Amino acid sequence: MSKKIKGFSKLTKEEKINWIVENYFNNNLNVVDIIKQYWNSDAQLQQLHDDFIENTISNFYLPMGVAPNFLINDKDYVVPMVTEESSVVAAASLVAKFWSTKGGFKTTVLGTTKIGQVHFMFAGNKEDLISYFNKNKTELYAATASITKNMEKRGGGILDIQLIDKTDQLENYYQLHITFETKDSMGANFINSCLEAIAAKFRNDEIEIVMSILSNYVPECLVRAEVSCKIEDLGVENPQKFAEKFYQAVKIAEVEPYRAVTHNKGIMNGVDAVVIATGNDFRAVEAGVHAYAAKDGKYTSLSHCTIDNGIFRFWIDLPLALGTVGGLTALHPLAKLSLEMLQKPSAKELMQIIATAGLAQNFAALRALTTKGIQHGHMKMHLQNILNQLGANAEEKEIIANHFEGKTVSHAAVVSKFEEIKKKSINWVDFKNESSLRGLLNSLEIETPAIFGKMNGQQMVEHLALLLKVSNGKIDADFFVEEEKSSRRKAFLDTDNELQVGFKASMLSEEPVPAKFSTLKDSIEDLILQIESFETHFKTNATENHPFFGELDYQYWCKFHVKHFTHHFKQFNLV
Amino acid sequence: MSKKIKGFSKLTKEEKINWIVENYFNNNLNVVDIIKQYWNSDAQLQQLHDDFIENTISNFYLPMGVAPNFLINDKDYVVPMVTEESSVVAAASLVAKFWSTKGGFKTTVLGTTKIGQVHFMFAGNKEDLISYFNKNKTELYAATASITKNMEKRGGGILDIQLIDKTDQLENYYQLHITFETKDSMGANFINSCLEAIAAKFRNDEIEIVMSILSNYVPECLVRAEVSCKIEDLGVENPQKFAEKFYQAVKIAEVEPYRAVTHNKGIMNGVDAVVIATGNDFRAVEAGVHAYAAKDGKYTSLSHCTIDNGIFRFWIDLPLALGTVGGLTALHPLAKLSLEMLQKPSAKELMQIIATAGLAQNFAALRALTTKGIQHGHMKMHLQNILNQLGANAEEKEIIANHFEGKTVSHAAVVSKFEEIKKKSINWVDFKNESSLRGLLNSLEIETPAIFGKMNGQQMVEHLALLLKVSNGKIDADFFVEEEKSSRRKAFLDTDNELQVGFKASMLSEEPVPAKFSTLKDSIEDLILQIESFETHFKTNATENHPFFGELDYQYWCKFHVKHFTHHFKQFNLV
Repeated sequence: MSKKIKGFSKLTKEEKINWIVENYFNNNLNVVDIIKQYWNSDAQLQQLHDDFIENTISNFYLPMGVAPNFLINDKDYVVPMVTEESSVVAAASLVAKFWSTKGGFKTTVLGTTKIGQVHFMFAGNKEDLISYFNKNKTELYAATASITKNMEKRGGGILDIQLIDKTDQLENYYQLHITFETKDSMGANFINSCLEAIAAKFRNDEIEIVMSILSNYVPECLVRAEVSCKIEDLGVENPQKFAEKFYQAVKIAEVEPYRAVTHNKGIMNGVDAVVIATGNDFRAVEAGVHAYAAKDGKYTSLSHCTIDNGIFRFWIDLPLALGTVGGLTALHPLAKLSLEMLQKPSAKELMQIIATAGLAQNFAALRALTTKGIQHGHMKMHLQNILNQLGANAEEKEIIANHFEGKTVSHAAVVSKFEEIKKKSINWVDFKNESSLRGLLNSLEIETPAIFGKMNGQQMVEHLALLLKVSNGKIDADFFVEEEKSSRRKAFLDTDNELQVGFKASMLSEEPVPAKFSTLKDSIEDLILQIESFETHFKTNATENHPFFGELDYQYWCKFHVKHFTHHFKQFNLV
Repeated sequence: MSKKIKGFSKLTKEEKINWIVENYFNNNLNVVDIIKQYWNSDAQLQQLHDDFIENTISNFYLPMGVAPNFLINDKDYVVPMVTEESSVVAAASLVAKFWSTKGGFKTTVLGTTKIGQVHFMFAGNKEDLISYFNKNKTELYAATASITKNMEKRGGGILDIQLIDKTDQLENYYQLHITFETKDSMGANFINSCLEAIAAKFRNDEIEIVMSILSNYVPECLVRAEVSCKIEDLGVENPQKFAEKFYQAVKIAEVEPYRAVTHNKGIMNGVDAVVIATGNDFRAVEAGVHAYAAKDGKYTSLSHCTIDNGIFRFWIDLPLALGTVGGLTALHPLAKLSLEMLQKPSAKELMQIIATAGLAQNFAALRALTTKGIQHGHMKMHLQNILNQLGANAEEKEIIANHFEGKTVSHAAVVSKFEEIKKKSINWVDFKNESSLRGLLNSLEIETPAIFGKMNGQQMVEHLALLLKVSNGKIDADFFVEEEKSSRRKAFLDTDNELQVGFKASMLSEEPVPAKFSTLKDSIEDLILQIESFETHFKTNATENHPFFGELDYQYWCKFHVKHFTHHFKQFNLV
């Protein structure tokens, strides 16, 4: 059956979701719940986010973290970072703190101009084109007057329009190559509007406009971030060795493209996290940065390192076209908040902060790679992720983390270890096995300290006997648990879970009942007797009522007693 | 004051937020509300998301949309896309539908191998190194046995280990260049674990390991997506012309790096949206893709076009290292849901879907650029964004959208237009201007139909007079509004907002009070009288209590009456 649909965009959000669930999820309504669980409870806020794009069905959460202690040009920053990758924020925080005691990061904006181009085909005489261009150049500027008016007030606008001959690359292909200054806005709309106005003015019967569009390649919109210190101030065990190995790692990224790509990817972990947090477009930044890394004909490292006269210096030059006004910067409440967290930076200041985040991330990666390797940290996170997926509790996580310290973490190995400790952690008491039971009770004394609760050892034994008496019909109390509640509660008896500490049926008194028998030994003998009687009783009876779980048959009573014995034997450290 | 902090990561989430708000937001508690407004109401789900990274304070929402009608290798897909950029999902949907009637997208996986490298320094004799490598090669494979065991079961593992001499690039620099197959996992952890095990086995006194790490450059993990049809089937007005211009636009991106960067950026708009939705790492994909675009020494287009024998063909080759198991794919509930929406694809199938999303996006961009330009669509969205920011309602949006049809949208122009219609839409009643008031009331009759509410015309006039009597001291009711409430409510009187329909002070009866005067004319005369009396009253009195707004002075009473008159005059269509 074809799953084509007409007019999908016209459906309401609910209708869209229903169509998807019907056609691609076999009508599984849980899917609807998952999608809606991510909606904001404030309908107006949700509407705002829905309107950012088309066919919105939910909000994809990316975690927003913060890295404090960034010192950039002697100013303190806490840097908001949005990323799904573990270790990125931790690395940023560690490196920020590390360099904050060594003068911090120094940054310089090397340029802010951006490029837009009108691409066109012209088959005529080149001299005619040049003369046409020169004659009309003033008109081209004038054609954008209404668009550039406000930008010029803010100090921006069109800086230059050049005619470029590209016919050696492609027949009849020329460009108007236009340089812009867009101040605090990223400027895409502004530049594209100017270009379309210029193209409309420039076109004639011989000039065929192919397209008019800004470039995301911005080698002149460039910022440098750097750190430096004396080698002996690097604060590691063998600073000379550390610096040399770090230097080698940078050199390798400079000469080897396979390494350079990953090296720069690590830089972008830091860059993109802040780009997204501040409502900027990471695809634009990524494209511009990687193309810049390839600008000299071979893809290479964006960062560089020198060791001169005992000084370690590490820096990066990054082309970054960013906005702190316009776009999502004011529309997305968390992007707005991120910019406020950064003390409302200008676009130039944001360039410097983001280049710093990139350099910090690169420093962290190279430090880890050249010392203990990155798998140490990654494996820790990888392990935590698997454990979260398995629903491990805090104690289980600790046991397993200790087990895998220094070992390789694979999904299968973690699952197997998890299952192992799950089994090991519960030594279910086989209450019907008399000799085993006596063995376990051997170490119990009246004064054995309890791990929880108020009963002493003998009271506990008599408490177990009491519940056995309920199950063997000797205590015929008027317990009644509604059928609906009972069936819900009974499900617990089918699980591998233990009774929780603090679990107490409402029939029981707050204070422990004084022991009936004069010695612990007598109480134990009575317990054994009640167990025998329980076995006999169910030969002729089908069910007995439990005060909490309701009407139970033999199998369920057994399940209950196993949990109950185990719970109380743990209380006195008997299992 | 320095804003350094120690032990930040040890603080609870609340403590972290408090520290930020104290140090970077002047203790503005609204910031805490904004951050918390984005928390999920399910604490356990929130904890899951918090644990993905470090120092998490909130969830950054990226809109999750869907693009239906993708036909890929004759199978239907609805593609989940996570992006903050408007038009991306709309473009994908339109292009998917367009090609679904022309055979859809065809895709081929061209390779799936990935690379990892052990980078090391060796100053000795190269022949010795080669012999050492050859002798130990089997041991290097063996060193990873415990790590590769499960991967080999799934058909993956280490395919090849090569020794590479890089000393012509950097003194003493060699590599172990290792090829991997990682099946449905992205494989970063697997590859890095193997590499570290190999490095540990390989190192000796003469071999200094600098680092061991996978490469995000994956030119052999490659997929092709394409579309093709007869030119006359392109379904546009002048298909030959359309195809030629489209072809030119692709050729330009092939020869001109400034264009290629933006061209490829547009492709990545589609690619990353699905990469993020499926829990993959977009920085890794971005780095690998752009480096691939620069592989031949000059940054160029990732997509290509031919027109041969009347057939239009458009395709892309993309290096994509993706996972459909491991990482966030199962941990992030919406990533998991995205993969289910795509019918649980293998990594190879996901490569094909994502390459298709990239090609579709590129087709949409080139079609728009070479026909009506992209600003037309962008401007529409830009306008909507500004209007959302201004809080425009649906009616205002429509009026302004019509106004800007075909015009250039600047922020300033939209604000100015918005203010203009805001002013125009409210004709505040100047109740103190007697002749103007009489003029407006001229068209009122007792039976003039009301737009809302139950009063007739005369009752409305007497109702206005009643509130005037409250303000001129003639009705001395025991109104009391707490100071705190009053000051909060009074703020409304300072705004340009109107009284809302349905707003009603609690003192008023549900049913309209019967008119006291025998004619409407008499009621109007009384109203005028009360207004005069209001003016006189405040010459000797400072304040009077309002039943809802509390104690008001003359200025606030005037503000109230203006709103009140305007509200009721609108009720009878008098303004």
